[in-house]
Amino acid sequence: MGKKAVVLLSGGLDSATVLAEAKAAQYDLFALTVDYGQRHRREIDCAKAQTKAQKAVEHRIVRLELTAKDSSVLTGGGEVPAYEPRKDVPPTYVPARNTILLAMALSWAESLGAEDIFIGATAVDYSGYPDCRKAFIDAFETIANVGTKAAMQEGKTFRIHAPLLKMGKGEIIARGAQLGVDMARTNSCYDPDELGRACGRCDSCGLRLKGFKQAGLTDPLEYA
Amino acid sequence: MGKKAVVLLSGGLDSATVLAEAKAAQYDLFALTVDYGQRHRREIDCAKAQTKAQKAVEHRIVRLELTAKDSSVLTGGGEVPAYEPRKDVPPTYVPARNTILLAMALSWAESLGAEDIFIGATAVDYSGYPDCRKAFIDAFETIANVGTKAAMQEGKTFRIHAPLLKMGKGEIIARGAQLGVDMARTNSCYDPDELGRACGRCDSCGLRLKGFKQAGLTDPLEYA
Repeated sequence: MGKKAVVLLSGGLDSATVLAEAKAAQYDLFALTVDYGQRHRREIDCAKAQTKAQKAVEHRIVRLELTAKDSSVLTGGGEVPAYEPRKDVPPTYVPARNTILLAMALSWAESLGAEDIFIGATAVDYSGYPDCRKAFIDAFETIANVGTKAAMQEGKTFRIHAPLLKMGKGEIIARGAQLGVDMARTNSCYDPDELGRACGRCDSCGLRLKGFKQAGLTDPLEYA
Repeated sequence: MGKKAVVLLSGGLDSATVLAEAKAAQYDLFALTVDYGQRHRREIDCAKAQTKAQKAVEHRIVRLELTAKDSSVLTGGGEVPAYEPRKDVPPTYVPARNTILLAMALSWAESLGAEDIFIGATAVDYSGYPDCRKAFIDAFETIANVGTKAAMQEGKTFRIHAPLLKMGKGEIIARGAQLGVDMARTNSCYDPDELGRACGRCDSCGLRLKGFKQAGLTDPLEYA
């Protein structure tokens, strides 16, 4: 066995690309999907397809009850808004989500003896999300190296990898395609229909479609 | 309504004292109990009794599936050891536990508009736990103030209160008694019997009994 990495995998386009990136860097992959009651359950099926394609050693899917579930449109509060470029934090923001996800990944990493954690955070198109910025990723790396037995007693050093941090959607899609990611098995839509087809109008669909255009590629997804 | 605080409450002696401390500081209390499959389920009943006694505005009990559940004797891996003074991290250590708990508390606090989070971490008797040290608490406070919309966009400042950090068990018990905490409704044992009675021999029982002795008080708990 080589070096182990825990990869946070939602089943979206970004995290599927990160999983492929970790594979290309020759890590043994331990993928973690956290199901916190997102509306887009189809993502979990996409996550399974991606871990299979990348020959992950293990894929864990864990349920998490969010305490703040009424405060984001992703988990139950209000309508998903149509796509528009914005400067403030979008209503799809889930309070402290990446802190929770990284904490769970860290816990698993420590128990596996892994030092590397991958997350598909990107600060370019989602500039509104405070927990997708470099300052946040750095602060979490500090937590990992201060708050664990592995770092304190076993001389381990945790690294939080966010390889998409400075990439726009078009660049991510181009990189994903280069790494052979099956984009038909990724989900982006915040509000799919009953058949699981993307709506084509939410924030996330808007960014995705713009990204494919920027990359000069065709989105293989079926839209409603 | 006054100022809101989210208080992490396990139902143990430390967190019950912290709940009373937050009440004494005149916060409106929002207690959060995370059930990650600990062996000592009796703690949850104790947590309920404490929130009732302190007239908490709300008490949320959420289930969390730990990814690292085989790596601690608390959540399923191996025997709970008898009490002994130790310098290394005890086998009851749950990887990144306080990072996960604080992340969940932060998520709820942000959605409530609260800026204050209380945790019963103590570095004195549990010197082995890396996530019970001041450096860890400080690092998490940084995370909260870097990784949230509330801090980034609404000018809020999160504070992580760990009022027991420098207190030994004897001092905590004396302070809890002073604040009127019903110590009979707190649980410490890692390995209670079928009737929920404390074992009197695990790490946590050992510390508790020593603490009552130091405080010159009698433990009202029934031991097996």
